Amino acid sequence: MNAPRWLTDTEQRAWRAHLALHKLLMHRLDRELQEFELSLNDYEILVNLSESPERRMRMSDLADATIQSRSRLSHQISRMEAKGLVVREDCRDDRRGTFAVLTQQGWETIQRVAPHHVASVREHFVDRLTDDQLDELDAAYTPIVEHLKKLR
Amino acid sequence: MNAPRWLTDTEQRAWRAHLALHKLLMHRLDRELQEFELSLNDYEILVNLSESPERRMRMSDLADATIQSRSRLSHQISRMEAKGLVVREDCRDDRRGTFAVLTQQGWETIQRVAPHHVASVREHFVDRLTDDQLDELDAAYTPIVEHLKKLR
Repeated sequence: MNAPRWLTDTEQRAWRAHLALHKLLMHRLDRELQEFELSLNDYEILVNLSESPERRMRMSDLADATIQSRSRLSHQISRMEAKGLVVREDCRDDRRGTFAVLTQQGWETIQRVAPHHVASVREHFVDRLTDDQLDELDAAYTPIVEHLKKLR
Repeated sequence: MNAPRWLTDTEQRAWRAHLALHKLLMHRLDRELQEFELSLNDYEILVNLSESPERRMRMSDLADATIQSRSRLSHQISRMEAKGLVVREDCRDDRRGTFAVLTQQGWETIQRVAPHHVASVREHFVDRLTDDQLDELDAAYTPIVEHLKKLR
């Protein structure tokens, strides 16, 4: 291996700011969702299902959409089934497997919690950035997202 | 509660770009560390200890530094002890508890792996941003980090 190219001060500051921001923000959003007996992981599943046709997704697609392993998602869905937020359904006509389906209670939960969650996201992130900063963030990160998606 | 202020398109794009970037990047960095039989969580602990005086930290400080619960850190440290990377040490003179201490093997591991990890961080993140973008990222995120730290 060639001599390591250690990060410069500018690079180090940006990289550490990204990491710290993310961890602290997720911790905060998770805590504010606890009031509604949801975790941030629960919320993400509810959003994905609520935005899908018939409020259902194939488990493998839901694992892809939430960027986690099939086995981790399976545990997550089991916990949410126990809470009455989702149910699993097997599709007879489709051997590609099981679906996760939002229940009526899951739908009512996301309707009720979403206004509070968006207020949290505003208070601790979005409203602290100018429109220019938001545009720059999108312009900086979206090409990297595309790069990383190709590697999966 | 007042009428929800849903995110605008600009806000939504930036927020989703941040979330997608983070998940995909962590997934990638974690995968590239697997070659060295480390997880990203292991790596973060090794970095923190290797940068501390005498390569040791009080468990409570290490939990703060890595922004996780004391109980989750405890499991993490147990796994790393089993791999010979760290040891726990009780401090007789200090009732504030246990320290995590980097072993010689842990020190050699971080020395060996760091050049590869920094190359990954460059390839999938830092080298894909201009110096201006890195400065903007730091300027945007650091004040939010300060805000969130105050809430902990």
